[in-house]
Amino acid sequence: MIKKILVANRGEIAVRIIRACRELGIRSVAIYTDADRHALHVKKADEAYNIGSDPVVGYLNAHNIVNLAVASGCDALHPGYGFLSENPVLAEVCGRRGIKFIGPSPAVIRQMGDKIQARQAMIKAGIPVTPGSDHNLEDVEEARALANKIGYPVMLKATNGGGGRGIRRCDSEDDLLKNYERVVSEASKAFGKPEVFIEKCVVNPKHIEVQVIGDSHGNCIHLFERDCSIQRRNQKLIEIAPSPQLSEAQREYIGKLAVRAAKAVGYVNAGTVEFLLDHDNQFYFMEMNTRLQVEHCVTETITGIDIVQEQIRIADGQPLQYKQDEIHHRGYAMEFRINAEDPQNGFLPSFGRITRYYAPGGPGVRVDGAMYTGYTIPPYYDSMCAKLIVWALDWHSVVERGLRSLDDMLVYGVKTTIPYYKEILRNDEFRSGRFNTGFVEAHPELINYHVRRPPELTAAAIAAALAAHLGM
Amino acid sequence: MIKKILVANRGEIAVRIIRACRELGIRSVAIYTDADRHALHVKKADEAYNIGSDPVVGYLNAHNIVNLAVASGCDALHPGYGFLSENPVLAEVCGRRGIKFIGPSPAVIRQMGDKIQARQAMIKAGIPVTPGSDHNLEDVEEARALANKIGYPVMLKATNGGGGRGIRRCDSEDDLLKNYERVVSEASKAFGKPEVFIEKCVVNPKHIEVQVIGDSHGNCIHLFERDCSIQRRNQKLIEIAPSPQLSEAQREYIGKLAVRAAKAVGYVNAGTVEFLLDHDNQFYFMEMNTRLQVEHCVTETITGIDIVQEQIRIADGQPLQYKQDEIHHRGYAMEFRINAEDPQNGFLPSFGRITRYYAPGGPGVRVDGAMYTGYTIPPYYDSMCAKLIVWALDWHSVVERGLRSLDDMLVYGVKTTIPYYKEILRNDEFRSGRFNTGFVEAHPELINYHVRRPPELTAAAIAAALAAHLGM
Repeated sequence: MIKKILVANRGEIAVRIIRACRELGIRSVAIYTDADRHALHVKKADEAYNIGSDPVVGYLNAHNIVNLAVASGCDALHPGYGFLSENPVLAEVCGRRGIKFIGPSPAVIRQMGDKIQARQAMIKAGIPVTPGSDHNLEDVEEARALANKIGYPVMLKATNGGGGRGIRRCDSEDDLLKNYERVVSEASKAFGKPEVFIEKCVVNPKHIEVQVIGDSHGNCIHLFERDCSIQRRNQKLIEIAPSPQLSEAQREYIGKLAVRAAKAVGYVNAGTVEFLLDHDNQFYFMEMNTRLQVEHCVTETITGIDIVQEQIRIADGQPLQYKQDEIHHRGYAMEFRINAEDPQNGFLPSFGRITRYYAPGGPGVRVDGAMYTGYTIPPYYDSMCAKLIVWALDWHSVVERGLRSLDDMLVYGVKTTIPYYKEILRNDEFRSGRFNTGFVEAHPELINYHVRRPPELTAAAIAAALAAHLGM
Repeated sequence: MIKKILVANRGEIAVRIIRACRELGIRSVAIYTDADRHALHVKKADEAYNIGSDPVVGYLNAHNIVNLAVASGCDALHPGYGFLSENPVLAEVCGRRGIKFIGPSPAVIRQMGDKIQARQAMIKAGIPVTPGSDHNLEDVEEARALANKIGYPVMLKATNGGGGRGIRRCDSEDDLLKNYERVVSEASKAFGKPEVFIEKCVVNPKHIEVQVIGDSHGNCIHLFERDCSIQRRNQKLIEIAPSPQLSEAQREYIGKLAVRAAKAVGYVNAGTVEFLLDHDNQFYFMEMNTRLQVEHCVTETITGIDIVQEQIRIADGQPLQYKQDEIHHRGYAMEFRINAEDPQNGFLPSFGRITRYYAPGGPGVRVDGAMYTGYTIPPYYDSMCAKLIVWALDWHSVVERGLRSLDDMLVYGVKTTIPYYKEILRNDEFRSGRFNTGFVEAHPELINYHVRRPPELTAAAIAAALAAHLGM
């Protein structure tokens, strides 16, 4: 069995992986750059190594990280999400150095990372994809011809993109001509590769993704779907499992489709098949994420399966612990990405010192975080500082529990997305359980909240007034 | 529907009830004495009223509390546990003043509070009880005669006792003669009534209790059992649901028995039927607690039912939301009572200022607490400052998750029972899932732990050493 794991990441996901290690009796090794020396993952790990003074570079150096894994006696490495998690080089270097990579094979990472190759594999497996390119575009002329053929709007996408970046919607030929060089340039800068392609744009779809897990013995199951339609500029904000908008028949269909997709590419370990669901109830394959996702927690919450522990067992060569018909979902889970941002100022990052932090608690509340009172959020990384996950037996209750626990979660010193999420949860459309990826854009009024005074102040004020009245 | 609830309690259970109110859209009113003015329940409630300068007296004055409920516009009152929760007078005064009491009728509280009456009711309903008194003892002579008849060891108990107090085990006639006046005196002091009775002592039983809920329409169901065998001097420390020591047949049997007991006394609202399970696999009725229990959370966690919300709905006159066959349990839940006590100093209360508190998090972790960084635990109340509840799909995993999250939970400034619980969780007998109420006494060695350095210090030390070695 794996005895020691290097966690090649930072922040909440590193903490999450360290927790799984501890529960499995596996030693954990953290890495950190100077900016992260007070980070929670450094405190929680059994060992922690400084990997450099630049805040980011150390986390992106696959060779150094694997060297450190070898030198510190690790037999496995978990990449988390972001950073090198979908870089096939890290998986390859691990393989060469005898370190078990906790994720799929480099070949599958590479294949799914290239969105054209992924589309081709899915078409071959009989998975529905949107009309679009079957190869990288040669130039803007080819883009124009293809767009005219499939009809506007179209999506112009970086072939090696992902995570909602390197994507532009084009509503007309003008748009396309204007955006083509921009996306090529973005693709080069963000992903190191200039290739782009075109897909028919599904307008305001629902974002439905399916968690799959495959082992190295040919078994593959799904853990039902997540609804990630509440997004802002292709960045997920609130994720829900299961989707309140699917029928049982749709749930069964999409689960089977995802397993077929995973099996078609010989997928091993945990992954996510993302689909768009259009207004005619057609599902289209969007992409496959070959790593643990931020929002894996909602799936854990409804199924009871610890996905990170499963990942480790699979990397260890163990067969899946469960058969498909042993996986059940119960109730609804909802995850809020608590970002250190100011929603009322264009979601500008709001880094700095957390002067006080009170974690929410009580029934059906889970917090995966990397912040604590006195922690200074460094400005070099993603602005997400915690995830709040709530669960309840029915949809109405999970919405109310979400509101209650967002109220319960007090973060002072930085602005967060918490008050904005409360507005979303008070919105009737959201509460009806019917929404699509256009929700945030369609409701600009939700940003106009007044920051309420914390309940303790209110209570004290009311009490003083009434105490006077009662002569107490 | 109920619109505003007075929470006639303090600390974590008051916070728990306030959270349920908020999720149901009900306003909450807190009460507090001077010593509690910085308590979390005061901050969390919609309104809060000072009920006096004495730390405790205000919480025990039923008339004043109900007056306040009326004056502040409440239509219901939740008593929590402890304080007045099992005092029929509070329920009666509520009834007279038009405030819905969130609990059973005064008659049932009175009947179950009198352990002799409770035994009689159970015998009549065909529920097995231990051999013992069918009326209060006249004097020590009657005690001696009865003890000789049923055989030693016997338990000498306060008729109006509960919560593990006013109980002495007598192994011989000498013991009985020595303890009789003591228990009478304890009973007078603690419960205001000197009556005592005798029961056959079941030696080192398992403590198995069943959560029941009845509505005012004659429906009554159970939510499976809790195993509270890990006790010290009749005070529960760790509670588990479901019991890892029951067969499915036993689980079904005890559940039905508890519902029969509840129905026999016309029980309405949430209650607990406590049983002893002896070495011959015989169950005996011990007592019925006519209130919410500290350990209700483990039942909520395995069934998904929010017991406090159900209590409120029932008090509102609504029928139960669930039928028995719609109640399912999944996985194992374990609750740790985090007490501000020093286990290595006779569990002496360790009150004072919490200089830093880091809540545990991650999968399967729930915290119900009333503490926060900077909070000073007042010396006037129960030493329990939080409850940590963990859940996992199987027994082995819940034990490991318990250890991990106890590690995760950092409380500085006061001593707590956290390190002692870790020792229990490392003990092979406990890990085997076979233990009884004699466990704590049988393992005095578990108190001899060394307080480990927090992992962050260890990690830093190891990292420094290895970094030198690696030349980093």
